[in-house]
Amino acid sequence: MSHSTRKERLYITIFGTHTPAGKAFDITLILTILASIIVLMLGSVSPISQKWGQLFYLMEWGFTLIFTLEYLLRLYCSPKPAAYARSFYGIVDFLAILPTYLVFLFPAAHYLMVIRLLRVMRIFRILKLVRYLQDSNLLLRSLLQSSRKILIFFTTVAVLVTVFGSLMFVIEGPEHGFTSIPYSIYWAIVTLTTVGYGDLVPQTDLGKTLASFTMLMGYSIIAVPTGIITAEIGHQSQLHRTLVKCMNCSRPGHETDAVFCKHCGSELAHPDDRIVSAPATK
Amino acid sequence: MSHSTRKERLYITIFGTHTPAGKAFDITLILTILASIIVLMLGSVSPISQKWGQLFYLMEWGFTLIFTLEYLLRLYCSPKPAAYARSFYGIVDFLAILPTYLVFLFPAAHYLMVIRLLRVMRIFRILKLVRYLQDSNLLLRSLLQSSRKILIFFTTVAVLVTVFGSLMFVIEGPEHGFTSIPYSIYWAIVTLTTVGYGDLVPQTDLGKTLASFTMLMGYSIIAVPTGIITAEIGHQSQLHRTLVKCMNCSRPGHETDAVFCKHCGSELAHPDDRIVSAPATK
Amino acid sequence: MSHSTRKERLYITIFGTHTPAGKAFDITLILTILASIIVLMLGSVSPISQKWGQLFYLMEWGFTLIFTLEYLLRLYCSPKPAAYARSFYGIVDFLAILPTYLVFLFPAAHYLMVIRLLRVMRIFRILKLVRYLQDSNLLLRSLLQSSRKILIFFTTVAVLVTVFGSLMFVIEGPEHGFTSIPYSIYWAIVTLTTVGYGDLVPQTDLGKTLASFTMLMGYSIIAVPTGIITAEIGHQSQLHRTLVKCMNCSRPGHETDAVFCKHCGSELAHPDDRIVSAPATK
Amino acid sequence: MSHSTRKERLYITIFGTHTPAGKAFDITLILTILASIIVLMLGSVSPISQKWGQLFYLMEWGFTLIFTLEYLLRLYCSPKPAAYARSFYGIVDFLAILPTYLVFLFPAAHYLMVIRLLRVMRIFRILKLVRYLQDSNLLLRSLLQSSRKILIFFTTVAVLVTVFGSLMFVIEGPEHGFTSIPYSIYWAIVTLTTVGYGDLVPQTDLGKTLASFTMLMGYSIIAVPTGIITAEIGHQSQLHRTLVKCMNCSRPGHETDAVFCKHCGSELAHPDDRIVSAPATK
Repeated sequence: MSHSTRKERLYITIFGTHTPAGKAFDITLILTILASIIVLMLGSVSPISQKWGQLFYLMEWGFTLIFTLEYLLRLYCSPKPAAYARSFYGIVDFLAILPTYLVFLFPAAHYLMVIRLLRVMRIFRILKLVRYLQDSNLLLRSLLQSSRKILIFFTTVAVLVTVFGSLMFVIEGPEHGFTSIPYSIYWAIVTLTTVGYGDLVPQTDLGKTLASFTMLMGYSIIAVPTGIITAEIGHQSQLHRTLVKCMNCSRPGHETDAVFCKHCGSELAHPDDRIVSAPATK
Repeated sequence: MSHSTRKERLYITIFGTHTPAGKAFDITLILTILASIIVLMLGSVSPISQKWGQLFYLMEWGFTLIFTLEYLLRLYCSPKPAAYARSFYGIVDFLAILPTYLVFLFPAAHYLMVIRLLRVMRIFRILKLVRYLQDSNLLLRSLLQSSRKILIFFTTVAVLVTVFGSLMFVIEGPEHGFTSIPYSIYWAIVTLTTVGYGDLVPQTDLGKTLASFTMLMGYSIIAVPTGIITAEIGHQSQLHRTLVKCMNCSRPGHETDAVFCKHCGSELAHPDDRIVSAPATK
Repeated sequence: MSHSTRKERLYITIFGTHTPAGKAFDITLILTILASIIVLMLGSVSPISQKWGQLFYLMEWGFTLIFTLEYLLRLYCSPKPAAYARSFYGIVDFLAILPTYLVFLFPAAHYLMVIRLLRVMRIFRILKLVRYLQDSNLLLRSLLQSSRKILIFFTTVAVLVTVFGSLMFVIEGPEHGFTSIPYSIYWAIVTLTTVGYGDLVPQTDLGKTLASFTMLMGYSIIAVPTGIITAEIGHQSQLHRTLVKCMNCSRPGHETDAVFCKHCGSELAHPDDRIVSAPATK
Repeated sequence: MSHSTRKERLYITIFGTHTPAGKAFDITLILTILASIIVLMLGSVSPISQKWGQLFYLMEWGFTLIFTLEYLLRLYCSPKPAAYARSFYGIVDFLAILPTYLVFLFPAAHYLMVIRLLRVMRIFRILKLVRYLQDSNLLLRSLLQSSRKILIFFTTVAVLVTVFGSLMFVIEGPEHGFTSIPYSIYWAIVTLTTVGYGDLVPQTDLGKTLASFTMLMGYSIIAVPTGIITAEIGHQSQLHRTLVKCMNCSRPGHETDAVFCKHCGSELAHPDDRIVSAPATK
């Protein structure tokens, strides 16, 4: 039983965030991840890697061993190790340590090292630490609710850049740098999204007219995704506010960060408890 | 009568989307369209077309024959062939097959081939397949409702770029690349829409000051179309929600994707039925 | 008295928009303005002006005489000629004809010719013609109501570009093209507004870091003016809807383009009449 | 007592804004600040500083002495000099005069001169002068309320640019200019924020495909901060309107700039008094 208790305590520390030990573990882990990412980035800068390459190599092994230990601990203390291993974070955790071993075994697979940068995704775990969960959920829910509208928008953009790009290919042609339709579509994307690298610009008057039209189009249709998401965030915020009910007088409409009921003054449920019973079922 | 039934069945399969056969037909068609577009694009890339040109030519004829067959079938089974032929999609369908035959007859009309890219517009038919119709209608209605405000915005933008472009022509002049007023207006559009190619930049101090002003203007007035469309989408979403009434207790205000009435629990009308009776009359 | 009637009729034709003669006059005028602007623009393109310069010169005199006649007619038939002459459009009308005469008298004042492009502002008169007045008023009122917030935003942007520009001047210095603080501020504006010409880019690592920060700042603070104007347009639209009352049952809340009361079915006041009694007093 | 009264009067003049003397003081101060900033900027332009350098040097000393006098006066008349000295504006005021003295003592510390540009932040004091306080508070409160959502957004952007930048480093590599991961991340920021300098562009087809994806991503996720802030500004405006109650009939819902109650016609509290009792406690 003592064994079981230790495993459970370990589980709460590693996967949980509420206990002091859990918080300390999470903060240590995040700092280690950040450190490993910084080492990884600096290692790609030639002058630095020539000087400190040996040190970086050792540090990388240190980080890999730490993350391997952490991965094994997670597998060990998780009540359902297989489910963890197949979960999103389980895969990210595994991919974060795999490349170092692979490249050690097959030095030719050198380019796999970049996969380690997936560690950066583990930083999202930071959001568990603080009270960001609710806001994060609200944003995610808004994006999911409007995903169909956004897909329609992207289909329209895809058709627009195909049409504009092809027209530009006909108008300007290979002699002005528009060497193929796919490349002309690349130009249309650069222009419509208002990025405007300037590595490929129209030379003819007709091409400039069409480019002007593309720019004005891109300048104005950005209003559509913005409108979609704004309307949804506004709606979700309102929904959420409606859902925060006082447990004493059961009147709704409290702000997300309200602590006391504005009608009867009794304390409201803890924000993290509210979210559980709320529109997560949608 | 057996003939009539076959024709009707064909009509439901080709124009409809609800039957399994109709769905299979639509999916096959969309995949064929996408394949034909990819072949078309690759055919414009010199190294690829030199190697696979012969194959692409054959495939193009294959696609054209398939689309011709489809077009004839649509004409045959449509209850009003003339109306179909003159409809938006009827014209797109026709223009998608025309160029291949034209270029076969008149090889000089080579540049017409790009018209085939109009096939990309047939992809919008994909929206019929899934439940995207409602969201698509909501976006379209929002744009239509705000079309007058958007036209006012574009008139203002047209006046602004004319004024800024002309001033820049006077300030910088042909010696700094601003060779004419239309070209200076092109610069003003590139700058106001925040595209910023950098192929034409002001050289004088006064020119840079005016350019800064143009940029800040463009940076802030983008808020106007965004505001217009956001307000309209928000309003339309709300309107729509109000219109989704429960048929049992007739209370409105249900979410677009709600299946059961939130007041009495009885099932709501199917989303595709709701839209028909709704603000489409506006 | 016949004279007075003729003058009044002329006034209604020239300044009014509701009579058929008034509409015809406005449309003719707008087409003439557009033609004169096109001639003006084409005249600035060297190859074209060398070929057609003589014709353009004659046409320009034709347009100037037409606009002069129009200006004199407006002065003649206006009940308060002095008020007209000092009004915004009165000044624009005068400036639209002045340069041609001035340059005729003093050929050295050649650069004044560009003032004629102010004619483009007369196009706003087109908005009187159609039902755009209401929407135009709504947009203008939204901008006016949020002008204080927008001024705060621009003050913040001005401080930000000064701070970022100066820091960049210290970091990069004249050896990397950042020759002076004003020029570095120009770079900060190009970057913050996401225009990104690329004529001046940071070379040092520290400079690139600061540039990245400036870009992310610009990328996100654009949300502020958008938020301000969106909230205001939403509020104004709602206000406006509240103000459109049925004269029969006096219930408010009708859509801007509604013709009949949605509660009792009686006809609503004409849109152009509604606006007069509405929040124009604010 | 006369001394105390003089000190108090001085305090009201220097720190206050409501008395005529206080307004005159503030306006003089702001004009002096603007003048000193313009001198500072012009002094960095080589041709100008070579000609007027001597004059600028003298003027700079003049401004420094004026600001020093002002700083000492503020310290003298403030009821809590230590609190003022440690306040945000106290530090800004001190840093605005420090560099001139420092550089006089240690000419080598020449680059510190740029700190004087912090004077530009003192311009925010201008907002006290006019009725901008309320709007300024509303904007600030909206930003604070949505700061958690904005932090989530920036974390996501940080992860995105790391992932896109690293992928690009692997795809393009040093031979196409992507010399290191940090530099590739700089490219990702330039692209995602739609700045698009064009100093570093992808050369390979795969690189261009990934760049297109990055651009479309950046083009659409800008909708998220806009949506967050718009929803918050809309909510705050509404809250504020609800809080402006009539003191006579105590009905809420008045516009921010309303002077009289729209229900009973009695005068509303002065805007600056309203703000004090309002959601500043949140």
